[in-house]
Amino acid sequence: MNNVKIVVAGPRGNMGREAVKMVSGTESFELVAVVDSKHEGMSLSEIEGFHGIDVPVYTNIQTCFEELDVDVLIDLTAPAFGRKHMEIAFANGVRPVVGTTGFSEADIAELRNMAEQKELGAIIAPNFAIGAILMMKFSQMAAKYLPDVEIIEQHHDRKLDAPSGTAVKTAQLIAEVRAEKAQGHPNEKEELKGARGADFEGMRIHSVRLPGLVAHQEVIFGGVGQTLTIRHDSIDRTSFMPGVKLAVESVLKIDTLVYGLEHIIE
Amino acid sequence: MNNVKIVVAGPRGNMGREAVKMVSGTESFELVAVVDSKHEGMSLSEIEGFHGIDVPVYTNIQTCFEELDVDVLIDLTAPAFGRKHMEIAFANGVRPVVGTTGFSEADIAELRNMAEQKELGAIIAPNFAIGAILMMKFSQMAAKYLPDVEIIEQHHDRKLDAPSGTAVKTAQLIAEVRAEKAQGHPNEKEELKGARGADFEGMRIHSVRLPGLVAHQEVIFGGVGQTLTIRHDSIDRTSFMPGVKLAVESVLKIDTLVYGLEHIIE
Amino acid sequence: MNNVKIVVAGPRGNMGREAVKMVSGTESFELVAVVDSKHEGMSLSEIEGFHGIDVPVYTNIQTCFEELDVDVLIDLTAPAFGRKHMEIAFANGVRPVVGTTGFSEADIAELRNMAEQKELGAIIAPNFAIGAILMMKFSQMAAKYLPDVEIIEQHHDRKLDAPSGTAVKTAQLIAEVRAEKAQGHPNEKEELKGARGADFEGMRIHSVRLPGLVAHQEVIFGGVGQTLTIRHDSIDRTSFMPGVKLAVESVLKIDTLVYGLEHIIE
Amino acid sequence: MNNVKIVVAGPRGNMGREAVKMVSGTESFELVAVVDSKHEGMSLSEIEGFHGIDVPVYTNIQTCFEELDVDVLIDLTAPAFGRKHMEIAFANGVRPVVGTTGFSEADIAELRNMAEQKELGAIIAPNFAIGAILMMKFSQMAAKYLPDVEIIEQHHDRKLDAPSGTAVKTAQLIAEVRAEKAQGHPNEKEELKGARGADFEGMRIHSVRLPGLVAHQEVIFGGVGQTLTIRHDSIDRTSFMPGVKLAVESVLKIDTLVYGLEHIIE
Repeated sequence: MNNVKIVVAGPRGNMGREAVKMVSGTESFELVAVVDSKHEGMSLSEIEGFHGIDVPVYTNIQTCFEELDVDVLIDLTAPAFGRKHMEIAFANGVRPVVGTTGFSEADIAELRNMAEQKELGAIIAPNFAIGAILMMKFSQMAAKYLPDVEIIEQHHDRKLDAPSGTAVKTAQLIAEVRAEKAQGHPNEKEELKGARGADFEGMRIHSVRLPGLVAHQEVIFGGVGQTLTIRHDSIDRTSFMPGVKLAVESVLKIDTLVYGLEHIIE
Repeated sequence: MNNVKIVVAGPRGNMGREAVKMVSGTESFELVAVVDSKHEGMSLSEIEGFHGIDVPVYTNIQTCFEELDVDVLIDLTAPAFGRKHMEIAFANGVRPVVGTTGFSEADIAELRNMAEQKELGAIIAPNFAIGAILMMKFSQMAAKYLPDVEIIEQHHDRKLDAPSGTAVKTAQLIAEVRAEKAQGHPNEKEELKGARGADFEGMRIHSVRLPGLVAHQEVIFGGVGQTLTIRHDSIDRTSFMPGVKLAVESVLKIDTLVYGLEHIIE
Repeated sequence: MNNVKIVVAGPRGNMGREAVKMVSGTESFELVAVVDSKHEGMSLSEIEGFHGIDVPVYTNIQTCFEELDVDVLIDLTAPAFGRKHMEIAFANGVRPVVGTTGFSEADIAELRNMAEQKELGAIIAPNFAIGAILMMKFSQMAAKYLPDVEIIEQHHDRKLDAPSGTAVKTAQLIAEVRAEKAQGHPNEKEELKGARGADFEGMRIHSVRLPGLVAHQEVIFGGVGQTLTIRHDSIDRTSFMPGVKLAVESVLKIDTLVYGLEHIIE
Repeated sequence: MNNVKIVVAGPRGNMGREAVKMVSGTESFELVAVVDSKHEGMSLSEIEGFHGIDVPVYTNIQTCFEELDVDVLIDLTAPAFGRKHMEIAFANGVRPVVGTTGFSEADIAELRNMAEQKELGAIIAPNFAIGAILMMKFSQMAAKYLPDVEIIEQHHDRKLDAPSGTAVKTAQLIAEVRAEKAQGHPNEKEELKGARGADFEGMRIHSVRLPGLVAHQEVIFGGVGQTLTIRHDSIDRTSFMPGVKLAVESVLKIDTLVYGLEHIIE
């Protein structure tokens, strides 16, 4: 099989840098160009941090797709560009893997329509952390059999919001499969306010914030005589690359748009 | 809907006692009799530990099925009886849920054949611990995406064998979906023999034995920058009852034989 | 060395039963009698659950101490009796180990005075769970060096109060050695009320309640680049016996009253 | 109180860089110079990574101490220099905090002698990770009361040796206070060789190696009905700085040599 020919858009962002490194270091992948907001006509190897990676930089994505033979676009730019880049990709027979957020349901429906007309796969993934996605998927499956559940998420103490987006998303996925139910003793009493955490349809969510933590979440299911715990620990953003890689491999096999990496996992 | 009419065989064993209690305490279930090796003609309520549960005791399972209207047999006897009880159940239109082990592959094939001819559901489950089964199923799913895995199982210090049966079963399920691979550094060196645990197709299994522990297992998957951990803690045998209950509910909806509770879980 | 001659008061309570068993089963200990509210003149072996333990039952503790040679009284009765039993013990040269609560500070001062006048050791311990006491002691020590701390306590879902008494006691011990400080980001915001748990002088306490849990607590200390976690898991009340045993051994070596097992641990 | 005047030797090593940053960023500390193997006469601010930190670089430590008023030397050079730097520090009335290893017992005795003659504090610490040191100290304390213990250490999969130095050191500290005892069932049997881990005087040590892990250790103590777990998670080398800071503060208050940070912790 030939190598997959890949363009990375947004190479200088945190995830973009990692993606360039991942594509360059994967045997069956081939980085053919990057799309950047500046540096037109330069080689990527001339930009700091990309020493030795000699591929052309394009500022115009249409030109890039016209001049080169491209299989997949990995788009890690800002939400403002995601949709437009996808349309241009479809027009040029390129399959997009998009990490930006901010798509409306209408956007997604229209883009899915385009993908299906062109018979091209496309993946939009607001979260590429495969471990986190497995945690969420398993949590939803487990809740069918063990409906009593609490979530403890733990992050560094510079985080502003509580609970974390992942904790809320996990609770939502669980709520899809279990009836709302109050947990704990019906007469339980908080001697100190907040001890029992946040209430999400009867589930409890607890947010820990400490220096020395990075990003962790534990979902605990209780049944008579047993507990089942699913825990994800993430320590840096390179943890997203196995998910990006999986998306690239999967986008080649489908001919519609998939929203969310959880729908690729079997 | 009518209550499910249930017979429990083996009511005086540890699991049998719990099953009698579970069936009696479940609103949609009805205990109609028990099958025991003695106490013919007595009421179960006359036997120690069953005070107030007034159902007849049969020593002959055929007579039991002839005299009573029975939907499901829960068989928690010894391996020697499991197969015979299943055959009699099929002959009488009763759906068996069987917790005994020791069935050969030929046994299972023949019994499945009988089930399908009679269009009756049947479930044989060597393990009813639903949390453990979820752990194993999730572990197999996760290994596809995060193939580096180690298993730490922890039990009380009166356990004779190491690793536990559940740990080996988990490793086997993982091995079905991942290629054998050596883990750790190729040049790693045990300064103290055994530190790196047991080797199962490159996966490492560690067995902890301490007073104060009951039955616990942790499966840790490592990927770049992240780990995913699936943990099951079991503290008493009542933890098997949600699995027995699920099996009773499921056996009514199928018309073949299913071996292993993991195939019922969706 | 001679065996320690021990009387257990309150043998039919949960802890009393375990204490009788522990004393009978410890080589260097000798159970010489029990003090009960009834059964005067019977042998303990005639009471259900004590088969084979042939020691006299007294309803009058004074008579018991007069007729027998006793080193240590283990008192596991109700608060109403604890103080009176201690006074009678001192008068008879017996060293008391007392598990009841409800002593005022004045009580303790007076009883310590009596102990010192008689040069007799005495121990009052509201909590005999040695693992829990070690957890609290270590937590206090760690907080001096790693002052950012959160407590997660986890109990079965029939528990009424949150947070648990042990969690509050742990927080109080930590507060003795660290200055009050708000934790988390100064601008952090609870999107769901209660997510950040209960606030105890800036420390956060989270209470998890699920079936399948028994009694667990985790104290997490965060520092730059690291966390230290101290966790206690308790699964049944026999976990109190190593603490009772330690108290009996320690009370023989001291000649004052000690309140709290933490002051015996070195 | 005046700021503590500090010289850092070895500023370009990993720990040295962090130490320079820590000293510069601590209000009560003042960085007065660094001692390096090159760059004589330059300002530290001219060396890459130290922008804005304008202190002189010395290649001769004696000259440094002669020309400047110095309270404490933080020595993070190689073992070859540690001893000589300490002697020169003593001769100049400077208190050394030394992170290098490789001192013999004779070295330490001689250096302690020098420190006491000069009435100067000195600290040699092979490990500055305060969380790890607390874990080891607490483990030793706990083993007196709960002598059944297993150690699980977890590291990234590029680590060559197993078990880790910290695990062995922890086991040694525990062995000092507990009699050697075989753990587990006397007739236990390894169905897979190595499952029960490495044997250290009857304690078991298990080494987990996975991508996504950094440096973690869990010490589990088991007693009847309970377990106590002490866990340290370290995610980067900045985790050593609280220990270095504690050592600087402590060295000012003592007038002898202390070997090992565990002897400073109360």
